[in-house]
Amino acid sequence: MRAVTITKPGGPEVLEVSEVVAPIAGAQEILVRVKASAVNRADLLQRRGQYPAPPGYPQDIPGLEYAGVVEQVDTGVTRWQPNDRVMGLIGGGAYAEYVVVHEAEAMRVPAAWSLEEAAAVPEAFLTAHDALFTRMQLAAGETVLVHAIASGVGTAALQLVRAAGGHVIGTSRSSWKLEQLASQGLEFGIDVSKNDFADQVLRITNGAGVQGVLDLVGGDYLAGNLKSLATLGRIILVGLTAGRSTQIDLNAVLRKRVTITGTVMRTRSLAEKIATVRAFEADTREWMESGRIGPVIDRALPMDQAAAAHQLVEENANTGKVVLSW
Amino acid sequence: MRAVTITKPGGPEVLEVSEVVAPIAGAQEILVRVKASAVNRADLLQRRGQYPAPPGYPQDIPGLEYAGVVEQVDTGVTRWQPNDRVMGLIGGGAYAEYVVVHEAEAMRVPAAWSLEEAAAVPEAFLTAHDALFTRMQLAAGETVLVHAIASGVGTAALQLVRAAGGHVIGTSRSSWKLEQLASQGLEFGIDVSKNDFADQVLRITNGAGVQGVLDLVGGDYLAGNLKSLATLGRIILVGLTAGRSTQIDLNAVLRKRVTITGTVMRTRSLAEKIATVRAFEADTREWMESGRIGPVIDRALPMDQAAAAHQLVEENANTGKVVLSW
Repeated sequence: MRAVTITKPGGPEVLEVSEVVAPIAGAQEILVRVKASAVNRADLLQRRGQYPAPPGYPQDIPGLEYAGVVEQVDTGVTRWQPNDRVMGLIGGGAYAEYVVVHEAEAMRVPAAWSLEEAAAVPEAFLTAHDALFTRMQLAAGETVLVHAIASGVGTAALQLVRAAGGHVIGTSRSSWKLEQLASQGLEFGIDVSKNDFADQVLRITNGAGVQGVLDLVGGDYLAGNLKSLATLGRIILVGLTAGRSTQIDLNAVLRKRVTITGTVMRTRSLAEKIATVRAFEADTREWMESGRIGPVIDRALPMDQAAAAHQLVEENANTGKVVLSW
Repeated sequence: MRAVTITKPGGPEVLEVSEVVAPIAGAQEILVRVKASAVNRADLLQRRGQYPAPPGYPQDIPGLEYAGVVEQVDTGVTRWQPNDRVMGLIGGGAYAEYVVVHEAEAMRVPAAWSLEEAAAVPEAFLTAHDALFTRMQLAAGETVLVHAIASGVGTAALQLVRAAGGHVIGTSRSSWKLEQLASQGLEFGIDVSKNDFADQVLRITNGAGVQGVLDLVGGDYLAGNLKSLATLGRIILVGLTAGRSTQIDLNAVLRKRVTITGTVMRTRSLAEKIATVRAFEADTREWMESGRIGPVIDRALPMDQAAAAHQLVEENANTGKVVLSW
């Protein structure tokens, strides 16, 4: 089969379409003919040699999500038949013509979505849902501060919080991205290139602070996050683009009775990944089918332009996901 | 009535027994004739002028816990009658002959305990129970690292974890304290004056790490706590004797999917305090009555020796609680 491979650690230019050996489905697994995948920050790190794939996944093929058509089902598979349209997360290797996944990890693609659209959903929406509901335990009426609101996870979080009856304050370094997202239900946008976000959050909430922070940025944002929170507030840490280490005001953590939770999808066990997918589907299947939530795509590029796609994400030039398709 | 008062901010010597106006019970409240209270670190901070009492409690009388006899019940009280033996937490003012509390905040003193013994229980056991079960969600078979294991909260945590079927690794800066606690079920003690605790935790757990950390120390312990934790580990931060600010390795928080929760009892609303007490009683009433858990008292001093009692706690000379009684 063909796949986009990392020919050596480096910049976007090291990505090349090559011929590789296709995977083979084992018991309770399905072979999926991939139509599309999408770019995640983890792909950029893996390409630079900074984020090895977990055991069992190819080191030289990026791609954490896929949408495609079931090509073949192995013994014991009960949920799927050939030609079913599926989407899902995978530990790696989705920039390829075929992937193999456990049948319970795959999700049905809503009828109204193309496979290119579906490929933009799994990583962003599963990450946002798991962070907001399973970790943060977001309740209706609560307000969440979402950093990097224009990213894939950010736009998914915006939709999920609004669908669940909550409110969103989003941050971005680009005013034009915040303007774009106003039409998608963003009530309050903070341009962090011009403002201290914690000051703005306290102004918007009349000093009360927010109940939750979904932080895709990390680093020095922690101080502002603690300042932005109400008593019993929860910070869910999903990404660290701004840095891996910072100072923490433990007194604020104690006094406000804050909870800080770090989370990552990729290293989870199969059983836990299946539980994550089931929780997501139970809460959101109706929202997906009715169009209440759905993919936010910056653009779709052909798989042989993976290098250009990586470049876009590396430069934060996108609002929503950059999709790659065959 | 008589009360130990803070005559001015300062050292233990500023504490003096004075005549003050007794409190009066309002609707659904009980007037308790206090037999004993116990010393908490918050009392030392309040005495130094660094920790004001919450609104509605005297600024100049320390004391967060009491045991005594119901003297008078006001209209609407259904749980108690005069002469009932009660114990509980209070926002302040327990180094006094009388306190007033909402009837639902008070707990019955087990028949086998003296009131001096009962006064050593509320703060330590409610704090430890809330941290271990409500916040950490400790499960049977899990191992908890408890810092300052010889403190009031530490010894209470040791008993609660053991009663719930968990395991404890305790730290202290004094080997003799660890030896004393071995007879109370401490399986593993680490003298942090001689060892790096994280190295020892990993050695004891064969590299697996612990599921929980109950941290009464704060400051630079955070780095070792993160190193000591297994995947999905939980740190509950209850005290900050070692410092209010430190560096945090956010990458470890993410990679291990750690949760860090700060908690404090004193600022909680009445409704939340009542819920905390109810959860504690539901889980531990049988353990208290059967003697499975109970007070760990370093010594009991008369109320007019409050200065000496503060001195002892300030010097970390105690194992378990220092009680003050009339």
